[in-house]
Amino acid sequence: MSLVVVGSMAFDAIETPFGKSDKIIGGAGTYIAWCASNFTPVKQISVVGGDFPQAELDALTNRQVTLEGVQIKKDEKTFFWSGKYHLDMNTRDTLVTELNVLGDFQPVVPESYQDCEFLMLGNLAPSVQLSVIEQLKTKPKLVVLDTMNFWMDIALEDLKKVLAKTDVLMVNDSEARQLSGDYSLVRAAKKIMAMGPKYLIIKKGEHGALLFHENSVFYAPALPLEDVFDPTGAGDTFAGGFIGHIAKTKDISFDNMKTAIIVGSALASYCVEKFGTERLREIGKEEITTRLNEFVQLSSFDIALV
Amino acid sequence: MSLVVVGSMAFDAIETPFGKSDKIIGGAGTYIAWCASNFTPVKQISVVGGDFPQAELDALTNRQVTLEGVQIKKDEKTFFWSGKYHLDMNTRDTLVTELNVLGDFQPVVPESYQDCEFLMLGNLAPSVQLSVIEQLKTKPKLVVLDTMNFWMDIALEDLKKVLAKTDVLMVNDSEARQLSGDYSLVRAAKKIMAMGPKYLIIKKGEHGALLFHENSVFYAPALPLEDVFDPTGAGDTFAGGFIGHIAKTKDISFDNMKTAIIVGSALASYCVEKFGTERLREIGKEEITTRLNEFVQLSSFDIALV
Repeated sequence: MSLVVVGSMAFDAIETPFGKSDKIIGGAGTYIAWCASNFTPVKQISVVGGDFPQAELDALTNRQVTLEGVQIKKDEKTFFWSGKYHLDMNTRDTLVTELNVLGDFQPVVPESYQDCEFLMLGNLAPSVQLSVIEQLKTKPKLVVLDTMNFWMDIALEDLKKVLAKTDVLMVNDSEARQLSGDYSLVRAAKKIMAMGPKYLIIKKGEHGALLFHENSVFYAPALPLEDVFDPTGAGDTFAGGFIGHIAKTKDISFDNMKTAIIVGSALASYCVEKFGTERLREIGKEEITTRLNEFVQLSSFDIALV
Repeated sequence: MSLVVVGSMAFDAIETPFGKSDKIIGGAGTYIAWCASNFTPVKQISVVGGDFPQAELDALTNRQVTLEGVQIKKDEKTFFWSGKYHLDMNTRDTLVTELNVLGDFQPVVPESYQDCEFLMLGNLAPSVQLSVIEQLKTKPKLVVLDTMNFWMDIALEDLKKVLAKTDVLMVNDSEARQLSGDYSLVRAAKKIMAMGPKYLIIKKGEHGALLFHENSVFYAPALPLEDVFDPTGAGDTFAGGFIGHIAKTKDISFDNMKTAIIVGSALASYCVEKFGTERLREIGKEEITTRLNEFVQLSSFDIALV
């Protein structure tokens, strides 16, 4: 039984108030794989061009990431994105988007991935996400979906089809409001869960994250940071930590999802400390444990004496 | 030894997307007294006009709120504020401000208040807050200060004098940024604590609250609410719950301040359910305990299995 991750593998060029990166490795699938592989082996589905460095693929292989489902199109170019963050780091302008190999990506699920128990659908066109779900002969134990406002704008009907087959949806607060048409996040959550997902995670950046399920809600804090150096990939990192912990423990209870959200938040707090995936490549079990304990300190309180 | 509360007692007229109130009882001091008196007796300092209902004063007396320090100016009118909330409930327009008795308020600390152990300075002109501190012959064990952007705009030098004598400051996130000139709340907290307060509470409304002290930080969640009916007084309610718990337990440790913030948050989550102080008058120990347990459910997680 395995964790299958679907997501882009890309080149990014990033500009923040703190500096400018070269063309570095990015993509939702890349971030998710680097993070989830801290906890469990990963079977990756993606597509890259001939320009994608073999060393990057080897680095993932060395982390128990199987690349049989990653198509390498020798004569084409890898997806490229370039963006510039504003001073508050909460908003950014896209400077360049070159879809390249991603433009006509037809994911193929290898036979060896048919043991998929946990499926993490990173942010991609809903039709691509749906294709992977439909190629799996057995319904996974848990399907987790990340998406964004862009797909709500241009592919809402496809997205709704994916939502109907999703167990856990991750979106940010403005996306939850857009998808539901409701300003109140509590009411938005009810409407979105009626579209399919039994669990909804609403990411609020520096304000933490909310997990909704039936009438239960969990509020995960975000670690207050002195500086956010580069927020790129923080949401994908969160997703990778979340699904990595779930797949390792094979426990899809509400309580274990709360833990998984803290794991995702801890990894995301590292991600933003350096450009791209740089910081994620440096950290291991020890750093993750340290940060998890900081989250306990950050949010624990005792009402016994009230 | 006692809790002394300084704050306005007022009339409010409120308009929200859900409806419009009559001229109802409001004022920071009123909210604080109603909330803190759930936990401990209160010695109140304020000023009202001859138009302030005796029944309102009697209701406070019945809750162990001593009114010896409340000046009643028979021939003058009580402070009046009217405001209208926007659709998102996070912003409001002030429609009317009639200072009346508050315009030349000279607080007088009665001799019987000189046993003040805990001093809660509700949002008022910094010069008034300072006058109360200076009239106390013995420095209280803890001085807690609430203020707002208005005083940063027009009375910053006075405010800085009060800050130098304050142990705990409460402001919202945009006020913390204004006061410090720093966007990062972590850096803002360091700068503000260098102005005097050893503890800083940054209120973030629906995003919870942060408590800073030296190098420690605590993130208190806010209860996600389906609807916020009227946010008026939520900050004062938070302050009242906070200081009420501290004064009852007489424990000014960081850990107990965390608990006090949860108590303040629980009360604030009730406050916004109805107009003005209406909901706060209905609740007692049982409702507070119920909500506190909801906060435990909302924020508890276990990292043992990671």
